[in-house]
Amino acid sequence: MTRPVSAELAAFAVDTSWSDLPHDVQQEALRALTNGLAAGLGGAGDLAVKAILRSLRPMSAAGQCSLIGESERVDMGLAAFVNAAAINVLDFDETHVGTIIHPVAPVAGAALALAEELGATGSDLLGAIVIGIEAACRIGNAISPGHYARGWHITATCGIFGAALAASRLLRLDHGQTLHALGIASSQASGLVETLGTMAKSVGVGHAARGGLTAALMAREGIEGPSAPLEGRLAFLAVTSDRWEPEKIVEGLGADWEIQRLMYKPYPCGVVLNPVIDACLWLRTEPGFDATQIRLVEVRGSELLRARTDRPDVTRGREAQVSAQHAVSISLLRGAAGAAEFSDAAVNDPDVIALRSRVGHIVVAADMAEDEAHVRICFADGTVIQRLVTTSLGSLETPLSDGMIAEKMRALAAHGGTGVHADGVLSAVSALPAAPDSAALMQALRAQEPSVEP
Amino acid sequence: MTRPVSAELAAFAVDTSWSDLPHDVQQEALRALTNGLAAGLGGAGDLAVKAILRSLRPMSAAGQCSLIGESERVDMGLAAFVNAAAINVLDFDETHVGTIIHPVAPVAGAALALAEELGATGSDLLGAIVIGIEAACRIGNAISPGHYARGWHITATCGIFGAALAASRLLRLDHGQTLHALGIASSQASGLVETLGTMAKSVGVGHAARGGLTAALMAREGIEGPSAPLEGRLAFLAVTSDRWEPEKIVEGLGADWEIQRLMYKPYPCGVVLNPVIDACLWLRTEPGFDATQIRLVEVRGSELLRARTDRPDVTRGREAQVSAQHAVSISLLRGAAGAAEFSDAAVNDPDVIALRSRVGHIVVAADMAEDEAHVRICFADGTVIQRLVTTSLGSLETPLSDGMIAEKMRALAAHGGTGVHADGVLSAVSALPAAPDSAALMQALRAQEPSVEP
Repeated sequence: MTRPVSAELAAFAVDTSWSDLPHDVQQEALRALTNGLAAGLGGAGDLAVKAILRSLRPMSAAGQCSLIGESERVDMGLAAFVNAAAINVLDFDETHVGTIIHPVAPVAGAALALAEELGATGSDLLGAIVIGIEAACRIGNAISPGHYARGWHITATCGIFGAALAASRLLRLDHGQTLHALGIASSQASGLVETLGTMAKSVGVGHAARGGLTAALMAREGIEGPSAPLEGRLAFLAVTSDRWEPEKIVEGLGADWEIQRLMYKPYPCGVVLNPVIDACLWLRTEPGFDATQIRLVEVRGSELLRARTDRPDVTRGREAQVSAQHAVSISLLRGAAGAAEFSDAAVNDPDVIALRSRVGHIVVAADMAEDEAHVRICFADGTVIQRLVTTSLGSLETPLSDGMIAEKMRALAAHGGTGVHADGVLSAVSALPAAPDSAALMQALRAQEPSVEP
Repeated sequence: MTRPVSAELAAFAVDTSWSDLPHDVQQEALRALTNGLAAGLGGAGDLAVKAILRSLRPMSAAGQCSLIGESERVDMGLAAFVNAAAINVLDFDETHVGTIIHPVAPVAGAALALAEELGATGSDLLGAIVIGIEAACRIGNAISPGHYARGWHITATCGIFGAALAASRLLRLDHGQTLHALGIASSQASGLVETLGTMAKSVGVGHAARGGLTAALMAREGIEGPSAPLEGRLAFLAVTSDRWEPEKIVEGLGADWEIQRLMYKPYPCGVVLNPVIDACLWLRTEPGFDATQIRLVEVRGSELLRARTDRPDVTRGREAQVSAQHAVSISLLRGAAGAAEFSDAAVNDPDVIALRSRVGHIVVAADMAEDEAHVRICFADGTVIQRLVTTSLGSLETPLSDGMIAEKMRALAAHGGTGVHADGVLSAVSALPAAPDSAALMQALRAQEPSVEP
């Protein structure tokens, strides 16, 4: 007899409240939300996000829900879609260790919109986000690594369930309705790895947020789904993976917290590039370092690093996010690896192109872990400097500090060019656990509205 | 080198016009649309469809697009979603032989809404529907039977691509944009067999229509997808099936027409029940037939018939659609097997229950095909009558006539209870090839608007 994990997960969503969560889980929720909103402020101006908004706006009702970095207010479905896309588009959001899910985009995308619509308290919003993150990541655990390896964009496919449970909790659905919300979400779970590196990725992520939100709204209206939408014979786990362990969804639920396995990215690119960039930024501070004198750069790392990022020829920012050659070139030249360093303009900077051409193909070292990299620089005068990184910044062992996350938000708010003040957002997030609603946060996230003459 | 089937399919969508289609393909398009709208008129009042409309209405813009059987006008996204759900909800729409896709729901759902929004001509609308049907069914051919067997609800998963191409054609997208529309659709392709028999099925089908429509709208706004969204290494075909033949998508494209492999259902239930019901309706006309005197009914058929429909105990209409025992009981008692005969009320009629209990478990006959059934009735006085059906009504060999499809629409319009006049819809469909727009058809499909006092 299969364990009824869908029903158990629904019960967890019904029974979990912010005030009952351990202090460190609460703190991590605030860090995850801050980091996600930082990514969203950076991504709000992205072409894909803007195009999604233009496409869907004619099919949106008048509404009062806020869009990150926009002055316009829209209905909750469109807000969920667009905000999720904005949070994820730069690949600068958090990563769940083991599944590489980015849960905040779909979950917070849905929860922020619905909480604003309902006037829910700050703690209800935060509790819903924790529930959604746990659900998405635990479903991911049950089907990793095969699900992603098969070609499923796990952030979207699992994210829709997290969004559905976050929304169900905010709507105070009962257990039966919450289970139906999971079933309705299962009918729309989608997202392909093939779309990564294209704008269509953001459509999948936005859809996960809106689809999860509407699944909960539909369950409230009486729509019913299958009784075992995750573990059923022809249900989500079995259909989208070749090996699955349903128990992983519920083992330790409410005691072990997946939210504590989130990594926050220091750089807006594939996480496997983190140790490479760490090494470059360190080497650049060596006395007498002169990028113009570099003859050759050699990168050694894991097979995964080679498979994902050995990409010497890139012409666009999106490709550069998974190019070791670009990451090395830009970080050695500029001493930074932020959103500006992965823009189309940076990719096509002649100096960056010149140095990129001197970065060799990645050499696989069988004994190196995915979190390790070795960078060796040979200068024209024969000098050689090198650096081995074994634990990269942003890993669970070397997490970003709260201050680093705040700095990240300031940098991304500036990069996004929306005029939103990062410090206002940081204050509003800090105040959220005791806030009567999320209005102050959402106001801080909006672009300043055009002033109206009296 | 993999054949670029996505690009070839996009080219077909760009280059195909109604006026170039063979006459018999044009005729089949009118039959498919008529049959689909018949199903939609029957399904418009369904609880699932009404609940979807209630759930999504608050997130719909004001719009001028019609809903089948409603007086209300909504935006095109909501119209696509709800109309697709209505067409498919009763399982009374057409079935593509070989894939069991029901393509009209997602394709016409999207095309009717967009054509109404754009004021497209009747022939442009019909041409777009043909393109969408070909695309959905051909993609299905490439992954059948494994895709459905794995648990994918193929109507939804393949339907979104058909909807995307129909919408792309109506928007006059160029080749590059049309290919991107396929890529955007791939990021949202979803639908699980596990949801069949629940209301969540209709959410998957509605999503396919709206998702395909919005994919085309997004491509128009500049959103880009992967270059090979179907045949790419981690793209739709490979990810959602275990064996696939990309060439099937394009072999004979524009010469062999999948629309000519559509079956129109005479009865609103699983197609494997067709020969069983045919046999019962024939036996009922035997001289002296008296249902009250039946002692036992024995049904013999294929293993598929047993696996899908041997279901003696049913309490709801949805279950009854896949119950041979119910189909036998109701058709022998009432001499009909329409939508009313598969309602919750019919399922719980004491006379129906009593006769159902006298229908035995299905006996598998290894030599019988899926389109065959044998029904044997033993009466209390020892009399036995029996009937073997080898080609059931609604198959490609014994298709419904145009007149039968018209009768089906009249019966379903009455069943739906929306007040829509079937004959008005029939006239409007006939006039569509020469119509300057689809306004007359959409007006005929709407429920009569409440009259306004002057």
